[in-house]
Amino acid sequence: MSFLAEAGLLLPVIQAPMAGVQGSALALAVCAAGGLGSLPAAMLPMGELRRELAALRAGTDRPWNVNFFAHTPPPLPDPARETAWRQRLAPYYREFGIDPEAIPAGPGRLPFNDEAAALVEEFRPPVVSFHFGLPAEHLLARVKATGAFVMSSATTVAEARWLAAHGADAVIAQGLEAGGHRGIFLGDDLTTQVGTIALLPQIVTAVACPVVATGGIADAAGAAAARALGAAAVQAGTAYLLCPEATTGALHRAALQTDAVAHTALTNLFSGRPARGIVNRLMREQGPLNPAAPAFPLAAAAVAPLRAAAEKQGRTDFTPLWCGQNAVSCRPVPAAEVTRELARGFAAG
Amino acid sequence: MSFLAEAGLLLPVIQAPMAGVQGSALALAVCAAGGLGSLPAAMLPMGELRRELAALRAGTDRPWNVNFFAHTPPPLPDPARETAWRQRLAPYYREFGIDPEAIPAGPGRLPFNDEAAALVEEFRPPVVSFHFGLPAEHLLARVKATGAFVMSSATTVAEARWLAAHGADAVIAQGLEAGGHRGIFLGDDLTTQVGTIALLPQIVTAVACPVVATGGIADAAGAAAARALGAAAVQAGTAYLLCPEATTGALHRAALQTDAVAHTALTNLFSGRPARGIVNRLMREQGPLNPAAPAFPLAAAAVAPLRAAAEKQGRTDFTPLWCGQNAVSCRPVPAAEVTRELARGFAAG
Repeated sequence: MSFLAEAGLLLPVIQAPMAGVQGSALALAVCAAGGLGSLPAAMLPMGELRRELAALRAGTDRPWNVNFFAHTPPPLPDPARETAWRQRLAPYYREFGIDPEAIPAGPGRLPFNDEAAALVEEFRPPVVSFHFGLPAEHLLARVKATGAFVMSSATTVAEARWLAAHGADAVIAQGLEAGGHRGIFLGDDLTTQVGTIALLPQIVTAVACPVVATGGIADAAGAAAARALGAAAVQAGTAYLLCPEATTGALHRAALQTDAVAHTALTNLFSGRPARGIVNRLMREQGPLNPAAPAFPLAAAAVAPLRAAAEKQGRTDFTPLWCGQNAVSCRPVPAAEVTRELARGFAAG
Repeated sequence: MSFLAEAGLLLPVIQAPMAGVQGSALALAVCAAGGLGSLPAAMLPMGELRRELAALRAGTDRPWNVNFFAHTPPPLPDPARETAWRQRLAPYYREFGIDPEAIPAGPGRLPFNDEAAALVEEFRPPVVSFHFGLPAEHLLARVKATGAFVMSSATTVAEARWLAAHGADAVIAQGLEAGGHRGIFLGDDLTTQVGTIALLPQIVTAVACPVVATGGIADAAGAAAARALGAAAVQAGTAYLLCPEATTGALHRAALQTDAVAHTALTNLFSGRPARGIVNRLMREQGPLNPAAPAFPLAAAAVAPLRAAAEKQGRTDFTPLWCGQNAVSCRPVPAAEVTRELARGFAAG
């Protein structure tokens, strides 16, 4: 059975889940256009996640996807490391008149747990995708028992094989070009990360299940290239960031429409895990990859008040401006248009 | 006029010049198959370069390419840096019984100069390509006056615009996946380096001249993808490394046929400039990118005796195993076969 039939899709286009810049509205617009809309659950408090899931279930008869982070449980805060990191950031706190003693610990990001599994059982999303591997066996079993089609991201051939062997129905080959968090979960050596044109065909050869391509695919030509390389569908994130249905902040939107998009980098400064965003002041001055940053997801807390204060002044110096390496064709058009363009390219590829 | 007509090619396939692993034999085999064979001049003493150019001129009626490094003149050796670097490598010298005081300075790599320009005037290669930018204006003028079609590598959109504005007839978009030396020449920040699927379409949009795709393109599917992204032709290097016409060493060939090809990295340890190769002992233990390594091309000298001693024992611990991120389909077949497969893929793309 083809991937489209298995996943129940009309078009081979998946809108990448992007925590912090979109909710059910973007997902529903993509579903209405025939693609797979995705809801990122990673940063939503349980109550809000429940409301969003209800909105999706009520808003479409077509398949939709909810995405969870499946990282290992977050580490306990390391007070010495936190203190050293905040000392490093002290000049910034002074610049904005922030009392570093008063910074709250931050909400963190819970990995997929029993409560999340119960929500999946209740709302029965047709597709459930994960980032950073897969949840524990008993939790994944509960997801699969609902009949959900399960996907997860692979950043190496080894990860693709692991996912296919551990229950993924499709593997998302995440090329190094992709914006946002790298899905890397077997090891943490970033030299293992490979560009889409090299990663995708190697994963297609390595696993029997369908392979979704993501990373640098932002228009019809990219979708055609992905199909030529063996993809069963494409997943795009950055291409949707300027859509009216996304909740991308005004400063982030503005940055996406400048030459700044030409220079992105992987950084761990905003969350503790490497993620690709437009290079900004914090990345230039402290990284972009700094081994002293607290572990995922703890790094977010120290930056949060700086981001808030700078954004009040209209500055993105401390804002994670997630963005892939191919944002130049990113346009403020309805999500349906982006979806149809990608599908048109895939059909021609 | 199309790129093929301009460059005089039958097939839109360029064999990447690969210093140290091939000479005129590989280039001629590719020319005979209808592609563009390339001779890497960078590491050849003038006498040998002259012999190779004569072999090419005599060996084919079709276009052929000679490639030069166009880096700025090499720095004078920095004695303090050299000493510190050799102290760092001292345990290795002891391991192999090498006297670090007796290591010669190494041949270095001359940038394109008056002598090289005179050779171009004498042998009139139909195509001349450069790496690390373009030579000085008066030297480039001498090359162009011969009627040669001039190409150079761009690793960013800015570099592509610079090359097009400074006389390149075609730009080679070198994606981050590519094996061997990065062509980066405007700046040295490696976070500016972009995967092929993102770089290629952006360069195609940015410049009016034809764009050649390279980086991760190793088979028919890759060539089809490159065409979908707007390439006028593809350039492949790694795909030719196992061809009988290449002079790739036995240990390098063996490594290319193991799982080791799954993990390459950019390293400056072997020459002083970042180049992609299979991760080996020296890269694991000292890098892969180490700011203490001598500047290009001076770093080569310190490693040379270690490489020679280790290779005598059948070990690649100190050998630069240049290789792109997509070597899995690399096969020991004649160069004509690789050329035709790439052309077939491009035609279908």
